[in-house]
Amino acid sequence: MSTGKRRDSVGKHTSTEDVAGNGLLNRRALLGSGIALAGAMGTGVGSTVAGAEPLKNDPWTLEMCQVTPALQVPSRFEKNVVRTRTNPNNEFRNSHARTPHHLLNGTITPNSLHFSINHAGLPDIDPDKHQLVIHGMVKQPLVFTLEQLSRYPLVTRMAFVECSGNSAPMFSNEPVQATAQALHGLVSNAEWTGVPLSILLDEAGADPNAKWVIAEGADAHALDRSVPMKKAYGDALVAIYQNGERLMPGNGYPMRLLLPGYQGNMNVKFLRRLKVVSQPAMSMFESKTYSQLLPDGKAWRFHFLQEVKSFISHPSFGQALKTPGHYQISGVAYSGNGRIAKVMVSADGGKSWGEAALQGPTHPQAFTRFDMPWRWDGQPAVLQSRAWDDAGFAQPLRKDFVAARGETKRPVTNPLGFPNQHYNSLTSWGVGSNGEIKHVYA
Amino acid sequence: MSTGKRRDSVGKHTSTEDVAGNGLLNRRALLGSGIALAGAMGTGVGSTVAGAEPLKNDPWTLEMCQVTPALQVPSRFEKNVVRTRTNPNNEFRNSHARTPHHLLNGTITPNSLHFSINHAGLPDIDPDKHQLVIHGMVKQPLVFTLEQLSRYPLVTRMAFVECSGNSAPMFSNEPVQATAQALHGLVSNAEWTGVPLSILLDEAGADPNAKWVIAEGADAHALDRSVPMKKAYGDALVAIYQNGERLMPGNGYPMRLLLPGYQGNMNVKFLRRLKVVSQPAMSMFESKTYSQLLPDGKAWRFHFLQEVKSFISHPSFGQALKTPGHYQISGVAYSGNGRIAKVMVSADGGKSWGEAALQGPTHPQAFTRFDMPWRWDGQPAVLQSRAWDDAGFAQPLRKDFVAARGETKRPVTNPLGFPNQHYNSLTSWGVGSNGEIKHVYA
Repeated sequence: MSTGKRRDSVGKHTSTEDVAGNGLLNRRALLGSGIALAGAMGTGVGSTVAGAEPLKNDPWTLEMCQVTPALQVPSRFEKNVVRTRTNPNNEFRNSHARTPHHLLNGTITPNSLHFSINHAGLPDIDPDKHQLVIHGMVKQPLVFTLEQLSRYPLVTRMAFVECSGNSAPMFSNEPVQATAQALHGLVSNAEWTGVPLSILLDEAGADPNAKWVIAEGADAHALDRSVPMKKAYGDALVAIYQNGERLMPGNGYPMRLLLPGYQGNMNVKFLRRLKVVSQPAMSMFESKTYSQLLPDGKAWRFHFLQEVKSFISHPSFGQALKTPGHYQISGVAYSGNGRIAKVMVSADGGKSWGEAALQGPTHPQAFTRFDMPWRWDGQPAVLQSRAWDDAGFAQPLRKDFVAARGETKRPVTNPLGFPNQHYNSLTSWGVGSNGEIKHVYA
Repeated sequence: MSTGKRRDSVGKHTSTEDVAGNGLLNRRALLGSGIALAGAMGTGVGSTVAGAEPLKNDPWTLEMCQVTPALQVPSRFEKNVVRTRTNPNNEFRNSHARTPHHLLNGTITPNSLHFSINHAGLPDIDPDKHQLVIHGMVKQPLVFTLEQLSRYPLVTRMAFVECSGNSAPMFSNEPVQATAQALHGLVSNAEWTGVPLSILLDEAGADPNAKWVIAEGADAHALDRSVPMKKAYGDALVAIYQNGERLMPGNGYPMRLLLPGYQGNMNVKFLRRLKVVSQPAMSMFESKTYSQLLPDGKAWRFHFLQEVKSFISHPSFGQALKTPGHYQISGVAYSGNGRIAKVMVSADGGKSWGEAALQGPTHPQAFTRFDMPWRWDGQPAVLQSRAWDDAGFAQPLRKDFVAARGETKRPVTNPLGFPNQHYNSLTSWGVGSNGEIKHVYA
C-alpha cells in the first residue's frame, strides 16, 4: 500500500473513534476521517479528457471483446465461487452442495449457489406432468397443475432456508479448521414467490379439527414431514419462483413447500402431496433423522425452528489479512423467530462488544447483513458476532450452548449418537500476527 | 378443468367481490371464497401413508436421478427463459440482451437474466489488474484496487437499472406486436453491494467548488458520462457485488457506478476513472446519444431520471388464456424518484380502475411487484396498469405522453430524429374472446 493523504498511524487508538476493544470503530466517526487504503498518485495522472498523460490501457480497453451470452455467467476469474459437493460422482447416497458464504456479500444467495441436499439425485421433473394433490380430512380432494397454481394470488417474500444439520462440525470438541462455506454452507437466502398454503387448504375445505398436514416430495426419496396446521395456515407458501425465476431443480422445481424459519427438510421439495390429518406421520425424518439426541439421553422431537444465529463471512478462515490497517468485518444474521434486532461484534474474543450496522430493511426469517469497521493493529485478535432477534432471543454463548447440548469428542466413536442438529452458537475467527485466520473456540 | 366444490359461475359478478369493471376482484373477498382452478378428485385418492390407492409414480419418483452440480442451472424445461440478443454473432457493433419479464415473477432479476448492453463486446477483465483512479479537482489523486475497495464500508440495497432507451418501440404510432421482454426488457432489478462514492471522494479530498464527476469505463467503448456532484455525494455507489456475488461481466465486472434511478448508461460499467471537475465533459453520450429530441425541435440534455413506470407481465403478449375463470394480473412498477406508492389496474381499457396489492416492503428506486385478482368472463378485455411514486408523480396516460413527447410514424423515415428515450406511459394488453393477447393502444 502506498501512503494516503490523511493516514492514521497503524494501531493508534483514538477514544472518539473506537467503540470496543482491539480496534472496533465507530462507523460514523470513520466517514470522512480518511481510511487511506488507496494508493496515492502523482499529480500528473491526467487523462484523455484532461489532455495530460493518459491512463495505461489494458488489453480489454483496446479491442472488441467477447460475445454477449443469452444467459450470463460469472467471470472466469470467479471460478472458485462454487458450491462444494459431498457426492460429485452421484453415488447411490445423498448429496450436499454448500453455499460459499466467505466469497459472497449482501443478503441474496444467487440461485446458482443456493445450497441443496438431494437424497436421491437431482430429479428431472417435467412440470407439465407434475401435480400437487391435497386430500385427507378435506371436503373435496383437489389436484393442482403448475399452471393452475400460477393463477392463485401469489406472495413474494425473502426467506432463508437452513438445514438443521448446518454447522454440525461446530459440535466437535476441537475447532475444525474449515471455511464459513464448510461450516455454515447449508443455509441460503432467496426471494420466494408462491401461493399461500392457506388458500389451497380453504379451497379443498380442510376440516377445522385437523391438526397436521403431511407433505410429501416427488423424488425417489419421497421425503415426508408433518407440518402443524397453525404453520400451514400461517406464513406457509407453495413456492414456484426463486429470486424471480422458476425454482432451481436442486431447490424443488417445479414447486416446494416454504415454511419460513423452519428446518430445511420440512420445506418439502418437488411437493406432490399434502394430506390433512389429525396425527403426525411419524415418518423416519421426524422420528429418527431430525430428532436431535440430547446429553441426558432424551431427544428433541418436532423441534422445527431454526434459532437466531450469525457468523462472520469477512474476514474468515481462508482469507489472510495482508497488512495491518482498516477492514470491514461483515457477516449474516437470521432467525426463525422473526427479524434480526441487533448484532454485536467483538475483536477481542468476547471481552468487549460493539454494535454492528445492519443493512436494511430487515426482513423476518431472512438474512440480514451486518458490518463493522475494524482497524487491525497487526496483533492477534479473535473476531466474533452475536445476534438478537425481535422476539428477544439471543444467540447463545458457546459455553452455555455446549453445557445444554453437548459436544462430540474426536475421533467420533458413536456416529449415530453424536449431536449434530440446530447449532446456533457463536463462531470465532482467530487472526494471527501473520494475518492468517484460524477457527478457534473462545 | 374439473369442477371444484365452491365454483362461481364464470362471469357472474357480485357487488361485494368486484372492485372495478370487467372482473377486477377484491383480493380479500377472494380469499376463502373458492377460486376453483384445481381439478377435483374422487375420494379414493388415498396414498401410501393412508394405505389406500397410491398416487401415480412418475419416472423421477422411481430412480436415483442426476448429479448435483457445483453451479445450479435452471431445468431443461425452462430453456426458453433466456435473454434475447441483438448481436449473437458479435459483429463489430453494440449488443443488447433483454430480460424475459413475461416469464419471471417476484422482484429480483436473476444475474443470468439481468439485461446488458455492451458497446464493444464483453470485456474479459482481470480483477487483479483493474484499477479505479480518482483525480482532477482533488487534494490527492488516488488509485484503488478491488481488494482495497472491499475494505471500505459497504452498503447493500435494491435498485433497478434501466436503459433510457427501454420501451423505445412504444413510440411507434402503431402498437408493435411484441412481448414484455421485447418492449421493456432493458430494465432489471438487483441487490447491489458497494462503497458509497462519497467516502472515496472524501478520501481523495474533492474540491468543494467542483460541480461534476466524469465517470469512464474500461472497455474499448470508454463510455464517459458527467455525474452531478450532488448525486455523487448522495446515494451513488461503486458497486462490486450483484445479488450477493461479484458483478456479472455484462453488468460491469469487477466494479461499476450505481446511480439509483438514473438512466442506465450513467451507471458506468467497468469503472476505471472518476475525474472531479467544474464543468461536464459534453461527451458524445450526453451531447448526442442520450439527448432526447422533442417535437418542438429542442432536446432534453442532462435529463437523468428514469420516471415512474409500470407494466403488466402476467398475462401479457404471448401468454394466451386457455379458459375463462380466475387469473392473477401481475407486473412490476418502479420510479427513479423513490418508492412506489400505488398501482392501479384496469381491465376495461382505463374506464374503471382498482388498486393492486403491492408486495412489500417497497424499496426506493427498485422494482415493486403488484398483483390484482381478475375473473375473465371470456369477453374482450384491455388490461392496463398505472403507477404513482411517493414523490407524487403519476405514470402519464398515453394521449398526454404522446402530445408532449411525440410518436414515430411507421415506416421510420428519419431514424436519427425519432423519439426513443424515456418512455414511461402505459402499456395495454388486449385480450381477445379467444384468449389471445395483443399489444394495443387504449
